[in-house]
Amino acid sequence: MLRDSSLMLDYPLRMTLPTDPAANLAELIRCPSVTPAEGRALSVLQGMLKALDCTVERPVFSEEGTPDIENLYGRLAGEGPHLMFAGHTDVVPPGDEGAWKHPPFAAAIADGQMYGRGAVDMKGGIACFVAALARYVKTHGRPKGSVSFLITGDEEGPAINGTVKLLEWAVERGEKWDASIVGEPTNPDRLGDMIKIGRRGSLTGRITVNGRQGHVAYPHRADNPVPSLMQLLGALLEKPFDEGTADFQPSNLEVTTIDVGNTATNVIPAKATAVFNIRFNDTWSVESLQAEIHNRLDRAAEENRLRKGAEQPVDFDIDWLGRPSPVFLTRDEKLVETLSASVEAVVGVRPELSTSGGTSDARFIKDYCPVVEFGLVGQTMHMVDERVALTDLETLTQIYLRFLEDWFA
Amino acid sequence: MLRDSSLMLDYPLRMTLPTDPAANLAELIRCPSVTPAEGRALSVLQGMLKALDCTVERPVFSEEGTPDIENLYGRLAGEGPHLMFAGHTDVVPPGDEGAWKHPPFAAAIADGQMYGRGAVDMKGGIACFVAALARYVKTHGRPKGSVSFLITGDEEGPAINGTVKLLEWAVERGEKWDASIVGEPTNPDRLGDMIKIGRRGSLTGRITVNGRQGHVAYPHRADNPVPSLMQLLGALLEKPFDEGTADFQPSNLEVTTIDVGNTATNVIPAKATAVFNIRFNDTWSVESLQAEIHNRLDRAAEENRLRKGAEQPVDFDIDWLGRPSPVFLTRDEKLVETLSASVEAVVGVRPELSTSGGTSDARFIKDYCPVVEFGLVGQTMHMVDERVALTDLETLTQIYLRFLEDWFA
Repeated sequence: MLRDSSLMLDYPLRMTLPTDPAANLAELIRCPSVTPAEGRALSVLQGMLKALDCTVERPVFSEEGTPDIENLYGRLAGEGPHLMFAGHTDVVPPGDEGAWKHPPFAAAIADGQMYGRGAVDMKGGIACFVAALARYVKTHGRPKGSVSFLITGDEEGPAINGTVKLLEWAVERGEKWDASIVGEPTNPDRLGDMIKIGRRGSLTGRITVNGRQGHVAYPHRADNPVPSLMQLLGALLEKPFDEGTADFQPSNLEVTTIDVGNTATNVIPAKATAVFNIRFNDTWSVESLQAEIHNRLDRAAEENRLRKGAEQPVDFDIDWLGRPSPVFLTRDEKLVETLSASVEAVVGVRPELSTSGGTSDARFIKDYCPVVEFGLVGQTMHMVDERVALTDLETLTQIYLRFLEDWFA
Repeated sequence: MLRDSSLMLDYPLRMTLPTDPAANLAELIRCPSVTPAEGRALSVLQGMLKALDCTVERPVFSEEGTPDIENLYGRLAGEGPHLMFAGHTDVVPPGDEGAWKHPPFAAAIADGQMYGRGAVDMKGGIACFVAALARYVKTHGRPKGSVSFLITGDEEGPAINGTVKLLEWAVERGEKWDASIVGEPTNPDRLGDMIKIGRRGSLTGRITVNGRQGHVAYPHRADNPVPSLMQLLGALLEKPFDEGTADFQPSNLEVTTIDVGNTATNVIPAKATAVFNIRFNDTWSVESLQAEIHNRLDRAAEENRLRKGAEQPVDFDIDWLGRPSPVFLTRDEKLVETLSASVEAVVGVRPELSTSGGTSDARFIKDYCPVVEFGLVGQTMHMVDERVALTDLETLTQIYLRFLEDWFA
């Protein structure tokens, strides 16, 4: 479902170029765009992009069982390479609003900080990139190439009607990109610390052990699945999957839940399940990691069978939950080097090129073009009193501007 | 609350002595006394006992949050020792009635078997003991002593308004017993196999491990309680608590459930709990066993702390759930020997004196007088097509009769 944006015109008309990142961010924070609500955040952004002479479309995607989501695709078109800036205007809920020093949707400024939900994750990144492009256009005119904005309202939600569908939608309309920057808050402590150039993969599995129910007083007539499940999980946790690689941290497995749900304290349960998630590096593909996990489990089951002198090994199943994310690493030297150099030129230090942390929409974009992530400092994201230093907004804008100048040079 | 049975007279008047166990059982099976319903089973039994010239009372016990339960206490009083026969007329639900070969409350006879819910657990035991006492009275007149019936309708239910309160109620009225037989189905395969002369204790504990919630991509910022819980449970399961004793099987621990309840596959949970039940022998008191469990857990937590080089050991709690049952063993030689000899005299083999299996109301009676359990063959108890061989009903009646003759001799 595509809303015809030509009929809408419900975005604010602007007379001036949006060159001030703090002003841009204040406007965006004041839109209460808690996932899945659009909250006029995309309309405000649309107004800024129209002032930059971008074409803007607002596709809405639907899927049964999930909320309809508004998205935005804007492009300042030109002959030459095509850079995509990607991000989201939706924000996580503010939690206990009374616990905030300043209201979460007011964009109050105090002690050089702007307070508000989304200040760093990631309305701030959008505000800075828009300001950088506005300054570019003001100084240099239109770039020798295209800059597009791929912005979703579904990054903090189920991520079903967002970036994945927006990319497919744009490609169907003939869009192609040469590089992408995702404006997520990548810096752990100080602006310029860290560019993310890849991400570990993510694989989630569920182990179900089938035993035989019975009375605790007659354990020989039952088969308790709990010790067997513990033994299988032990085999997954026992030794590391790898030591890490040149580009990545070691792979890490966490058991996220074990559930039996047996409320009768005199009954041996029939079934026990556990779910684990593993963040893995480029030692593994999804397939080779699944095979390694199967191997570990099968070996443990066989050892257990031998130890017990049983005829059959433990009866267990493994399901893979959700869509695994493969590992990726961005090897586009122009993109990574231009951004690193821009950071260094503005803040004086080379950023670390990192592959740590959780997934982001970069995992979807990487199938279409090289992608890096760089934005504000993430310390207050998702917390009460999310806030950004005004100096950081100016610094990030200068970095993005320098990047635009060098990348389009 | 005590219903005045003198005002009731709603039990069936009988003209003949209830000497036929199969006839007695058929009458009882036809009363659909699924816990907590009385289903007229106690009234039918009252009629039989009145025909034997017993006094009969029908105390009803109540407690908030549980159903009111009817119970029965009958006594054929005489000068001399006092024998109590204990049991229950309530039965577990029939389950899928369509799956039964013969309806569960019809007492159909086929191939020498009587079918029906409660046939062996334990309307059959009651039917045989009533028949044995009827034959005794018919042959010998009243015994030189007292025989009482302590029968509850709450053995298969929560067991709150049943045997425990009935014992207290009777003691308040001056009742004292010298010995008790519980008519539960104690024989694993053939009638005469096994008398139960004690029971292991039962202790239930819940372990809660408190970790720190976090994102699976940043495990160093979180503390996953699941591996710690697995390690604590491992310390409980690692080595046997004992090797068994002269009178008892080895103690055995079963983990009955583990629950985390975390549905987010990218989140490390904050808390994990497990419940275990241990059936323990006379190596242990409740207190010494609790101390041993605390020791094992504390030692495991300390080992884990050292291995991790952590400052604090894992943060865990243990709660003891419900009322622990201490172990007991009946050492009344007259009771045990008279019953063993009666079995041998009728079936030709000495029964095994066992302390195996789950708890029964004997654990309450043992506080008032020596108690043993002996009844029918338990193979079909709680199952579809619960049934009893007519020959077993006759044999058990003869054993009970022989016991009455010798015990009162």
